Amino acid sequence: MKTRVSSATKEVLISDDQPTVLIGERINPTGKKKLAAALLAGDMELVRKEAIAQVQAGADILDVNVGASGVDETRLLPQAVQAVMEAVDVPLSLDSDNPKSLEAALKIYQGKPIVNSVTGREHSLNEVLPLVKEYGAVVIGLTMDDEGIPMDSGRRLAIAHKIVDRVEVLGIPREDIIIDCLALTIAADSRAGLATLQAIRKVKAELGVNQTLGASNISYGLPDRDVLNSAFLALAITAGVTCPTVDVARVRQAVLATDLFLGRDGYAQRYIKAYRQRQ
Amino acid sequence: MKTRVSSATKEVLISDDQPTVLIGERINPTGKKKLAAALLAGDMELVRKEAIAQVQAGADILDVNVGASGVDETRLLPQAVQAVMEAVDVPLSLDSDNPKSLEAALKIYQGKPIVNSVTGREHSLNEVLPLVKEYGAVVIGLTMDDEGIPMDSGRRLAIAHKIVDRVEVLGIPREDIIIDCLALTIAADSRAGLATLQAIRKVKAELGVNQTLGASNISYGLPDRDVLNSAFLALAITAGVTCPTVDVARVRQAVLATDLFLGRDGYAQRYIKAYRQRQ
Repeated sequence: MKTRVSSATKEVLISDDQPTVLIGERINPTGKKKLAAALLAGDMELVRKEAIAQVQAGADILDVNVGASGVDETRLLPQAVQAVMEAVDVPLSLDSDNPKSLEAALKIYQGKPIVNSVTGREHSLNEVLPLVKEYGAVVIGLTMDDEGIPMDSGRRLAIAHKIVDRVEVLGIPREDIIIDCLALTIAADSRAGLATLQAIRKVKAELGVNQTLGASNISYGLPDRDVLNSAFLALAITAGVTCPTVDVARVRQAVLATDLFLGRDGYAQRYIKAYRQRQ
Repeated sequence: MKTRVSSATKEVLISDDQPTVLIGERINPTGKKKLAAALLAGDMELVRKEAIAQVQAGADILDVNVGASGVDETRLLPQAVQAVMEAVDVPLSLDSDNPKSLEAALKIYQGKPIVNSVTGREHSLNEVLPLVKEYGAVVIGLTMDDEGIPMDSGRRLAIAHKIVDRVEVLGIPREDIIIDCLALTIAADSRAGLATLQAIRKVKAELGVNQTLGASNISYGLPDRDVLNSAFLALAITAGVTCPTVDVARVRQAVLATDLFLGRDGYAQRYIKAYRQRQ
């Protein structure tokens, strides 16, 4: 399955016979006080800096999230998207659970963006999917519903099926869906790793769609998180994740190594090039 | 499949429902001038130090190899094994392709060791397996024969089948065989990673035996080898390797992370304990 997203000037192809596509996660005020304060003040300088730093570190797509307490997302999300479009030329993922904010950002976006995200909840499907259709976007579907995130991989698969069915009924092609099987915190439940990996394998086998994963949740509360995130990404990519959402500077080496071993980097060209750029 | 090896005082269980067992690779003079010189002089001090350092770093089993140009292996291998047995209490893997050296080491070993290794070659099978039988050892079978190491995973599987058949004909139980599907250098051939991973999966599915892997060969000639070795180990362990042969201090964290995600480390106890020991 080949998913295409684009900016005004650049197209990115997501596919399991291509190198892994990295979605940069750092434009997100959760847990970042400085960024949250800047956003509240309407100051986009930090957002621009984060955008440039992530693209220099190797991000192929950037996620843009301005959700913080007190923030008027519907006003700020398009402002942040505009600032990022002016700073870098990679495609963007517009990240909000508020349909109004998503629509405001979709209106000004140039190219084919990702909408992050829809869930298996009825109100989410009913409000977000028409926007995806209208603006010709790609959509990330999270395998959660009114009962939360199921531990059982079969239930996550069932939610993925439901989202794909609802998307296709609207005439949106399957290649415009990216599923996120969701990583839970392994410190809280030792089954969290296997459950996510099994869900990823099942979604790949049954639906064949591209998959993202916010992999860093897995290591929450544990020491040496980069080691954990790198190992988990290697397993998740092997299982079927094609465009993880990550802190690019911290895990890109491990992802390049994984691509090399999966036969997606002939003559280790990308691995060696990235090494030289770090010197 | 459960494989048991032991020293005079300690038993180690290798099984895919247990944490990964680490075989320390560093008592080997290949590429180590100081160690080679010390062995030629019959000086075992460095061997003792390497043994202690590896066990402190988390090695469960130590490989002992004294093969260097000019060395009388048949005299030195039992001396080195004796020195390591006096320094640490973990089980050992007696590493030589010379049956006389293996027998000399087997004679003085206390416990149930690993014999590293037999290949699919007739003379190797004919000379090594009777020793394994006589001394009640576990044996590592390398998936190579007179034509070298095949790139094709099906041919590696066929050699593994041949070794298992020949071992079982002698009345040695299958749990006393550990297969090594062999990692080739990915810088020389981009197919090397997939070929080894596929061979590992096939050996696990068809033979069910425990598997080791000298994983560091994969990264030869490339920069940042620890990143590559760590990612490859994560994939190899997921595919079926249960007791890799490694530089323990360099890759143990990645292996502990992988075990955690594969559900082999409840409450992250081993991961956290290892982190605390490093502080």
